[in-house]
Amino acid sequence: MKYNQYAYVETDYKTEVKELLQIKFLPIDYEKRSFSNLLGELIANAVAVISPRDESARKAKLAEFAVSSVQPLNAFLDTNPEEIASNQFYNVALQLLGYHVGYDYQLNDPLAFMKKQALPYIEKINDKQSLIQAFYRLLNTRAKNGQLLIDVMAGQGYFYNRKTEFAQNKFLFFNGKSMPVFDTSKIIREVVYVESDLDTDGDGKSDLLQTTIFRPIESETLPVPALYTASPYFGGIIDNEKRNHNVDENLTDATEWTNPQYQASAIVKAKKPLDSESSYKPVEQAVGKSSYGLNEYMLARGFASVFAGAIGTRGSDGLRITGAPEETESAKEIIEWLHGDRVAYTDRTRQHETKATWCNKKIGMTGRSYLGTLQIAIATTGVPGLKTVISEAAISSWYDYYREHGLVIAPEDCQGEDLDMLAETCQSNLWDAGDYLRIKPKFDEMQKILLEKADRKTGQYSDFWEKRNYRHHTDNIKCSWISVHGLNDWNVKPKNVYKVWQKVKDLPIAHHLFLHQGPHYNMNNLVSIDFTDLMNLWLVHELLGIENNAYNQWPTVLIQDNLKADQWHKEKDWSNDIGSETVYFPNSDNELTKDTSSKQKLSFTDTGGTEFKKAKISENDWQYQFICGEEKWAKASLRFTTDEFIHPVTIVGRPEIRLSVASSLNKGQISVALVEIADRKRLTPTPKILMPGGQELGFHFQLDSLQEFMPDKLTHAKLITKAHMNLQNYADMKKPSSIKAGEFYDLQFKLQPTYYTMPAGSKLCLIIYSTDQGMTKRPLENTDYTIDLSKTAIKFSTK
Amino acid sequence: MKYNQYAYVETDYKTEVKELLQIKFLPIDYEKRSFSNLLGELIANAVAVISPRDESARKAKLAEFAVSSVQPLNAFLDTNPEEIASNQFYNVALQLLGYHVGYDYQLNDPLAFMKKQALPYIEKINDKQSLIQAFYRLLNTRAKNGQLLIDVMAGQGYFYNRKTEFAQNKFLFFNGKSMPVFDTSKIIREVVYVESDLDTDGDGKSDLLQTTIFRPIESETLPVPALYTASPYFGGIIDNEKRNHNVDENLTDATEWTNPQYQASAIVKAKKPLDSESSYKPVEQAVGKSSYGLNEYMLARGFASVFAGAIGTRGSDGLRITGAPEETESAKEIIEWLHGDRVAYTDRTRQHETKATWCNKKIGMTGRSYLGTLQIAIATTGVPGLKTVISEAAISSWYDYYREHGLVIAPEDCQGEDLDMLAETCQSNLWDAGDYLRIKPKFDEMQKILLEKADRKTGQYSDFWEKRNYRHHTDNIKCSWISVHGLNDWNVKPKNVYKVWQKVKDLPIAHHLFLHQGPHYNMNNLVSIDFTDLMNLWLVHELLGIENNAYNQWPTVLIQDNLKADQWHKEKDWSNDIGSETVYFPNSDNELTKDTSSKQKLSFTDTGGTEFKKAKISENDWQYQFICGEEKWAKASLRFTTDEFIHPVTIVGRPEIRLSVASSLNKGQISVALVEIADRKRLTPTPKILMPGGQELGFHFQLDSLQEFMPDKLTHAKLITKAHMNLQNYADMKKPSSIKAGEFYDLQFKLQPTYYTMPAGSKLCLIIYSTDQGMTKRPLENTDYTIDLSKTAIKFSTK
Repeated sequence: MKYNQYAYVETDYKTEVKELLQIKFLPIDYEKRSFSNLLGELIANAVAVISPRDESARKAKLAEFAVSSVQPLNAFLDTNPEEIASNQFYNVALQLLGYHVGYDYQLNDPLAFMKKQALPYIEKINDKQSLIQAFYRLLNTRAKNGQLLIDVMAGQGYFYNRKTEFAQNKFLFFNGKSMPVFDTSKIIREVVYVESDLDTDGDGKSDLLQTTIFRPIESETLPVPALYTASPYFGGIIDNEKRNHNVDENLTDATEWTNPQYQASAIVKAKKPLDSESSYKPVEQAVGKSSYGLNEYMLARGFASVFAGAIGTRGSDGLRITGAPEETESAKEIIEWLHGDRVAYTDRTRQHETKATWCNKKIGMTGRSYLGTLQIAIATTGVPGLKTVISEAAISSWYDYYREHGLVIAPEDCQGEDLDMLAETCQSNLWDAGDYLRIKPKFDEMQKILLEKADRKTGQYSDFWEKRNYRHHTDNIKCSWISVHGLNDWNVKPKNVYKVWQKVKDLPIAHHLFLHQGPHYNMNNLVSIDFTDLMNLWLVHELLGIENNAYNQWPTVLIQDNLKADQWHKEKDWSNDIGSETVYFPNSDNELTKDTSSKQKLSFTDTGGTEFKKAKISENDWQYQFICGEEKWAKASLRFTTDEFIHPVTIVGRPEIRLSVASSLNKGQISVALVEIADRKRLTPTPKILMPGGQELGFHFQLDSLQEFMPDKLTHAKLITKAHMNLQNYADMKKPSSIKAGEFYDLQFKLQPTYYTMPAGSKLCLIIYSTDQGMTKRPLENTDYTIDLSKTAIKFSTK
Repeated sequence: MKYNQYAYVETDYKTEVKELLQIKFLPIDYEKRSFSNLLGELIANAVAVISPRDESARKAKLAEFAVSSVQPLNAFLDTNPEEIASNQFYNVALQLLGYHVGYDYQLNDPLAFMKKQALPYIEKINDKQSLIQAFYRLLNTRAKNGQLLIDVMAGQGYFYNRKTEFAQNKFLFFNGKSMPVFDTSKIIREVVYVESDLDTDGDGKSDLLQTTIFRPIESETLPVPALYTASPYFGGIIDNEKRNHNVDENLTDATEWTNPQYQASAIVKAKKPLDSESSYKPVEQAVGKSSYGLNEYMLARGFASVFAGAIGTRGSDGLRITGAPEETESAKEIIEWLHGDRVAYTDRTRQHETKATWCNKKIGMTGRSYLGTLQIAIATTGVPGLKTVISEAAISSWYDYYREHGLVIAPEDCQGEDLDMLAETCQSNLWDAGDYLRIKPKFDEMQKILLEKADRKTGQYSDFWEKRNYRHHTDNIKCSWISVHGLNDWNVKPKNVYKVWQKVKDLPIAHHLFLHQGPHYNMNNLVSIDFTDLMNLWLVHELLGIENNAYNQWPTVLIQDNLKADQWHKEKDWSNDIGSETVYFPNSDNELTKDTSSKQKLSFTDTGGTEFKKAKISENDWQYQFICGEEKWAKASLRFTTDEFIHPVTIVGRPEIRLSVASSLNKGQISVALVEIADRKRLTPTPKILMPGGQELGFHFQLDSLQEFMPDKLTHAKLITKAHMNLQNYADMKKPSSIKAGEFYDLQFKLQPTYYTMPAGSKLCLIIYSTDQGMTKRPLENTDYTIDLSKTAIKFSTK
């Protein structure tokens, strides 16, 4: 497995020496030392568990290393060598990197192992310069646990043991990244109450928003950047899944649509912050944990971590209004306080103003899913102070989360969930009885409004959804941009990141995209990519203004391969334009070919959710059996399969289908899927945890775990992409039309975007069906669908 | 679900007042305060996130509580009440305990909910005395997350916010338990090297044993007790499972047995500790984590946590010799150092002696599985300083772990594992290349010796195993004793705890036994029992010498019910004697009855592992299908089932079977199982994690999770107990005899002990079979077994 490294900044020898002196790794008198003395000293320095003051213990540790299968390191050093063979050096280096002799590598050929792992090495170490270069590269090499060796050493006490040697209250950089020299045993954890301009609970007073801050004690005198995670879950999650809406019901005639309107909440302008320098200190201890690994990692490196749930969440006033402009506004207001433009108080009596004097007014955002979504929301406001977002698995339009092409379409594993349920999930201020008394009646009312306006009956687009589409406001974006998404994310479907990317990529801002092989998941701590190090480099550049090559360090788009997890494709963009167009046509022999001659019509009968409910299997099990073509489920579909691919082909961007379809009723829903068919071992759906708790994010601080997608057991098929569409939108995606039973309508719509390599020997299968048990409504009645093959084709880009 | 509480010490009012003053909860002038003022003050004190100095923020928090469905707490207090109705008080109390109004309980009847949860309450709170009593009880009531409210408050900053008010460097007790007043941000983490009397690697020098210490900084001036966890896994685990021995082989004629002898390693006496007070400070930072929740919890409460792997583990000299007296000796020597009777050095050069001056010379032991095993091993040496053991899921004789009644029998999930494999797993000093060069050849030799002497060919008892039976030395035990074991532990089978318990219970030492419903698992943090609090009470008594009623606080034996997880049975003992004897006989109609008249002989053909390997299912799946009676597997067995039980009956202790059996070969293995048959929802096999990370073990310290066995999906059968026996031991369990094919031999042997309630409507099934896919060898040849029913009976105790 390759430990790819993108965040290593090429550095000249002079700078290497300077930086090694700065981190106190290279002794100040290195020029006077002999090769052998320097070698021993530097290896002892890398054994970070012992302070440089304890010479006897440092010596003792050297005996635990070996340079060859016959010679321990101490014996080698006793010979006063003037050079070291690279085999000898890397036998020791691999041990420092956490590999185990005899089990991971063999003393007679360490380089063979290093090549396999893609670990960098220097061929010749025959003078002090090459020795110093070898150590510089080694400290910046990823260890077995995935972290840079210097970070492993930090977790073992390297900086702690030398703390008196470093300037207090200063950032320390090494190879462009911030080092964990901040005192993690003295993190300040405090709570403040930011005053909103909103009055969502309509009590005539502006809503207060509880905000939790974790910051280094050094920020008392050294202003530091803030990583802000807008998390509606931070106050707790109301577990209401069991009450999800019923999806076992017939479709409704979509022309019942009334175009529900968004309605804004009341505004009560907050007081302006006092100009004076006077500020009360926060008085409330933070209880909630900062549980996000990337934030914790950066906290040890001097970046404050700020969490807020905003309106409706525990400790805050107001109502949760999922996806609405009010939600964006309230989450954005935390940045305004951090930037000095808004008032916050020490408690909910609003008596004592407290300022974020510890903040350097440069704010980055982090977080996944809803927490990534709010980054897009806030970025599109252009709020001053926000310098960059690292938005993972984010929604860019709420219609694309709960709806699709005129249909109610559930996120994976969330059948029957909707905006109103998510609002309740996050309305954690209901948990405090005093707040409950004030809020409950208004909450009940808002629940009704959300359910009604979200319009589960017709599934149509409306003004209500329009106001929940952040993509309309991308022109406001002023911060730099990083998006991360799983290509197999069927919860927040890839269309969300794809469509916002098409806009962001043309803006005059730095922008990057990472696409990994996971579902609704993050990609921190993968073996195959040094994502955490990249983010360190990025945040140092964006929030501390250090020139460290961050903007040129890695390609605009990095995409993880679906066959080999340790291969990342470097692309300039993610769109249909990076490939060339291919069109396939279905025929009546159930083939998918490039031949256009089919004239037949084919039919299938959809039985809704009837059979599925009887089978008592999970939605995921159904989907796997369905794409594999098990007859029980396959009969409610049409399937067209290509010949085996002779060469690998990669499908990129958004496939598009056109078809002509007739329904036996005056309504209907059509689903379309592209599936790869082959009996082969595919990657695990989620990364396997390889070293649980094996990463120390700071000295005696939080832990994280190395992980990677690994070859898994044999499967028969894999879903590449799919889409769903309401027949009543054949004329207009944003407006329903009446349709007649038995009449043909021409549909044309796009599937979710992908980047999927069909291996040689696999077949591509197009499935046309109706009820998708895990996502669509599941009608109680049967419906016959007929497809006119002469008007049916699927086109997509390949490379 | 009941939150049972056994560790609450009944306390008189005067003492309650004294303790509440000591923890600074009750204001010093409480007698002068009005009822209403005191009520407000105490509730504000319980909101631990705010310091008592910040009056405005304290007041603001009171508005977040409600006394009724119409009145928030602040409004109630504004009326200057002279009493508070218990409904009103507990509406607030439940919120303090972490319950959520509207979701967990209703404001119109909090007491109904408290009764359901078995939470204590006071009926009338109408004067200051009853108010103070109510608060004393409330702080000592288990919150929703399973911790005592005072511990929840501690995690929120209660003691931290008042740290200047407490005497520095002193233990603080509340209701007999130690409070987390120690500074968890300044834990000292250090490594020393204890010098053994052993020279297991035969290099002519005594072995050094790396020892890791986590201790409160307060121990620099206040000697504290040590919780020592002897963990051979602490240095890391060599993952060698894939090399487990082949079990797909025919049985061997056991008379090939040669009675392999234990052979002792060399002794090189260590230097004696210097008498002088001079001691070097340790110089090596600890890297490994103390990951055991109970230790971490006690560390915040002033108890040092000590980990050592002893011989053969990373950072130590020597060879791992699993189960041998050398292993016991080396693990024991750490206690000798803690007690001041042995020398340790700051590093492996043995130059600087370092003493455990921080230790009060009272040591307790903790840990599960191998870590529990070494507690039994060390306790039976009677080493001075060891005051108590809390031994979980421990082996008491290694023969009972890897063998049974003359057969090679695997621990669950460890088919093919043996002593030699476990030795390699723990020989983590091989990981350091310098040590590897020295140790590898000797390790290879020891591997051969262990494999040969453990004798997988015959499976017979021998001197080699005899020396690995700790139960021979129980007379030496001087410390008090707590055993914890899962009644469904098929890894370390319950016989291990049962047999050592039969000896311990007659010793003049305090002793307790906990039996839970888990497999090879711990029982910390269960909802149904306050185990952690009990251990706090116990350790305060044993290691700090505080009289806190620990010896009379809870019954000698507590056993979790297998039907209702929140019911714990109080017993004086665990043995056949707590029930009365019942005998059942099998008959040719496959019934199990109390009628003795069966004269027939019945046969079955065992096909070894042939069918199992073809089926490609897991051992656990096989076992479930087998006990359910699926024909594919059931045909290789005889089964005898009772009528449905009309009333619940509890089987206690060790059932015993006698039978007369003939094999078609001159060798044979017989397995016997008792199974409960009924279609019903049983408990989850392992506890369900209910609040991941929901327990703060100290202020900004480690987290733990609440868990409990919960009703699970319907199953058809459940294994109660089983046993296996070699036919060649019919005459003597410790010596094989030749047997003849086709001849009947009388066997009599005991099954694993149990405490199992058969619910009304269930049936008891006796299964007689041979190959047990997950545990026995799996012969390649077929064997016919014939049972003479006239000489077959199963007897057990019931109550």
